[in-house]
Amino acid sequence: MSEPRQVKLKPGDTIGILGGGQLGRMLAMAAARLGLRCRVFSPDPDSPAFDVVLNATCAEYADVEALELFAGDVDVITYEFENVPAASAMILAARRPVLPNRKILETTQDRLAEKDFIRQLGIGTADYADVSSAAALRAAIAKIGLPAVIKTRRFGYDGKGQTIIREGDDPEQIWADLGTKSAILEAFIPFEREISVIAARSADGQVECFDVTENEHSDHILKTSRVPAAISDALAAQARGVAEKIANALNYVGVLAVELFVVQGDGGPKILVNEIAPRVHNSGHWTLDGASISQFEQHIRAIAGWPLGKPVRHGQVTMTNLIGDEVNGYEQWLTVPGATVHLYGKGSPRPGRKMGHVTQVATGS
Amino acid sequence: MSEPRQVKLKPGDTIGILGGGQLGRMLAMAAARLGLRCRVFSPDPDSPAFDVVLNATCAEYADVEALELFAGDVDVITYEFENVPAASAMILAARRPVLPNRKILETTQDRLAEKDFIRQLGIGTADYADVSSAAALRAAIAKIGLPAVIKTRRFGYDGKGQTIIREGDDPEQIWADLGTKSAILEAFIPFEREISVIAARSADGQVECFDVTENEHSDHILKTSRVPAAISDALAAQARGVAEKIANALNYVGVLAVELFVVQGDGGPKILVNEIAPRVHNSGHWTLDGASISQFEQHIRAIAGWPLGKPVRHGQVTMTNLIGDEVNGYEQWLTVPGATVHLYGKGSPRPGRKMGHVTQVATGS
Repeated sequence: MSEPRQVKLKPGDTIGILGGGQLGRMLAMAAARLGLRCRVFSPDPDSPAFDVVLNATCAEYADVEALELFAGDVDVITYEFENVPAASAMILAARRPVLPNRKILETTQDRLAEKDFIRQLGIGTADYADVSSAAALRAAIAKIGLPAVIKTRRFGYDGKGQTIIREGDDPEQIWADLGTKSAILEAFIPFEREISVIAARSADGQVECFDVTENEHSDHILKTSRVPAAISDALAAQARGVAEKIANALNYVGVLAVELFVVQGDGGPKILVNEIAPRVHNSGHWTLDGASISQFEQHIRAIAGWPLGKPVRHGQVTMTNLIGDEVNGYEQWLTVPGATVHLYGKGSPRPGRKMGHVTQVATGS
Repeated sequence: MSEPRQVKLKPGDTIGILGGGQLGRMLAMAAARLGLRCRVFSPDPDSPAFDVVLNATCAEYADVEALELFAGDVDVITYEFENVPAASAMILAARRPVLPNRKILETTQDRLAEKDFIRQLGIGTADYADVSSAAALRAAIAKIGLPAVIKTRRFGYDGKGQTIIREGDDPEQIWADLGTKSAILEAFIPFEREISVIAARSADGQVECFDVTENEHSDHILKTSRVPAAISDALAAQARGVAEKIANALNYVGVLAVELFVVQGDGGPKILVNEIAPRVHNSGHWTLDGASISQFEQHIRAIAGWPLGKPVRHGQVTMTNLIGDEVNGYEQWLTVPGATVHLYGKGSPRPGRKMGHVTQVATGS
């Protein structure tokens, strides 16, 4: 993987952000705190990130002219989501540094390539198999066993594009329903807990990991994160080591999230990597209020060519997502002592839509 | 003082902010965190606050048409500085609620009216006298003694518009140099320490004070704030009580800062109010990183008609201003563990200009 071009911003320089959701919004606010400007590119005129920057580009990701103008107005480019179209990233990268390196997207946009990459590093994952037909699905089930999870190789998130297969299910029907030509079958992991590590890496190889986070999902959507995770120090160190190894192997610049399962092994609990998100991550939102530096600031520092911070956690932290209608309870949350409320400025609270989050910090622990 | 009109914003509503400096910028960022939009009004095209909002109005404060258009685009109006011209405030208040109430500006824009107001509440201040001529200055000196401080009644800040008078100085010359027709002579206070209280008050009378801050000035500009102040719990409670009394007497809505001196009294240390700032205040910047809720968010909540938060401090906090060229040391500060760096996005680091600040939190104390 080629070295990213050396970037060194100064206060007043401009960062281009692809994507206008809450992640882009919080990235832009972190950049502003450091005296850096942002320009946000998003096809959605109601993008929450537009509200916190002076300059925005509302255009499709395939709009070459808009991409070129955008690149001309910024000093470095980053993104809030991993599904940046490869062609768009290539157009931008020809004009300005894109960080993290766009080649990383090729690995993380494809569940199969991602799993292969992780395994090559000697890091454990669920057993998996490439599936490109109903027949291949039958063969994969025979190899991996049931229950198992079939996932599209591309463009899945929050449980979309995946189905559990159990004994008695009809592989032909499941394959037809999935409506894809490229999928991956993964062994179903009876995990004890789900954890994640948010790691930042600078261009000169400094890596800083936040404390390991324990995550609870509801309907495949993150509901609660707790820090520190209820695991041993040794296992936490191992999880951070895995994230560091991945970041180094990708020659990564910016923040990435590694989602892991804790499972019972022969000699006690062990970890398996579930997936990599090459971006700031919902399970790192607690860092905004629960640490001396946030994941958003670490990402901005990394892509600006500034030194990373050494995060100091303020206490035991709980982050609760406000999903769909739950956001209507914001006034109640405002009255909870020590709770910090974040609302993303999204219009309609559709079911499953992440509308905001709340952080609670218990100090002295 | 008349009741402010009842305001109750909902997420997505827009706050108008008069003034585009770092205070307006941090107010806008706090509003964004709560899902509220901001429009900033400032005559300076290089206003730091413009960078963090989608919509800005660049016009003079005397531009009636611009003020009216601005008012039409927002749901409530607030300000980052106490020297809002009375005529501008009146034009805006005819169209939208202005919070804090513009009548409060009449008191706090005039050092004499402010001191009279504080004394009427039975709260101690330095001795002072109205001075409108060289002869009146002589008489005031005879009454108050020397050393003393002569200050213009209006538009002073960061030590501008004030001079110390010592034994042997020529009152005629000092009066001529001051170049004003209305001034106030104040006894020079040999203070032990300078402290401040940041208080928030909601329209329904809830008052929340942050922990008392101890401030060190250099060349009349705030250099360092430390929290908690090194004073007894009883004195701290008394200081908070003074701020609460002032906020209630003003029927205040929003955040105000009360600056006080701690002096040796007969029965131990006692406090005297130095001045009131009807706005968020530099000595409250520590709350951004050192507490569960910041002064900026409290102000936004108050003017939005939302419940105030109960601030929980994360530890012992030190806030250091980066003044003038000191901002060039930002990269060094970025490497200090636990330090949080704020840069205001201002262009040139002129001497005395507040360019940013750094917060350090020592937890577990």
